[in-house]
Amino acid sequence: MPAYRKGANAERELIKILWNNGFATLRAAGSGVTPLPSPDLVALSAKKKLGFECKAWNSSYLNLSIEQFLTTKQWCSIAGADFFVAWKIPNKGWLFIKPENFSRRDKSFTISLKKAHAVSVPLTVILGKQAVIEK
Amino acid sequence: MPAYRKGANAERELIKILWNNGFATLRAAGSGVTPLPSPDLVALSAKKKLGFECKAWNSSYLNLSIEQFLTTKQWCSIAGADFFVAWKIPNKGWLFIKPENFSRRDKSFTISLKKAHAVSVPLTVILGKQAVIEK
Repeated sequence: MPAYRKGANAERELIKILWNNGFATLRAAGSGVTPLPSPDLVALSAKKKLGFECKAWNSSYLNLSIEQFLTTKQWCSIAGADFFVAWKIPNKGWLFIKPENFSRRDKSFTISLKKAHAVSVPLTVILGKQAVIEK
Repeated sequence: MPAYRKGANAERELIKILWNNGFATLRAAGSGVTPLPSPDLVALSAKKKLGFECKAWNSSYLNLSIEQFLTTKQWCSIAGADFFVAWKIPNKGWLFIKPENFSRRDKSFTISLKKAHAVSVPLTVILGKQAVIEK
C-alpha cells in the first residue's frame, strides 16, 4: 500500500477512536489554506483541545521536517491545544509522542522507535480519562 | 464569479481576520471524513473555541439544509465550541448569526437579511475582545 494510503487509513482509525471517546474531530484541508499549517487532525471536547500530526511508518526512526514540526507546534500553542505526534506502527498500534521528546537534527526532528515506546503517552491520559502516572 | 469561488474567497477573508486577532484557524477537509460533519472553519485560542459555517450570498434570505445545520450544531456542542453562521454580504461585510436565530422550515433553516442584521453578533464580542451589550 502506498505511504499516503497508509497515512489516510491510520488517520481515519484515529478519528474513529477519538470520536468513540466523545471528541468532535476535524481533519485539516490541504496545506496553504491557513496562514500557519495546522495539525492533520484536531479533536475537541468541552474540556480538551488536542492536535495530532499522524504518521504511519514501519521504521526504527520517525523523522518530521523541521518546518512542519515547528509551525504545527506553534499553531497548537496559539490554539491552546496539546500537540502529539501520533505514530501508527502498522499492525501493532499507536504511539503518542510529545514534541519535546524529539531531537533536532540537521534537516528534521527525529525520534527512535525505542525512545518512542518509552515516552509514549497512553491515550486514556491524553483523553483525560486517566490520571497521569509520574514515571 | 461562481458561488463556490465566492464562498472560498469569503472563507479565506474570515481566516485572515481570525488569524490577525490571535486565533489559530483550521479549515475542514471535504465532507465524509469525520463521523459527524464539522463546521467549515474552526478557530481556537487559549480561551475560545469557535465554529463557523461560511456563506457568501447576495440575497434577502439565507437557507441552510436541515441536515447540515443540525449536524454542525451537534458537532459544536460536542466540541464545546460556539457556533456561528458567518454570512458574507458581497461588498458589504459579515454578519455572524447564532443558530437559535434561524427558523425551521420544511426543507431548511432560514433567516431573513433584515433579521440577520438585527441579531448579528459583533466580531469583537465573538472574539472575546468586548463585553456583550444586552439589547
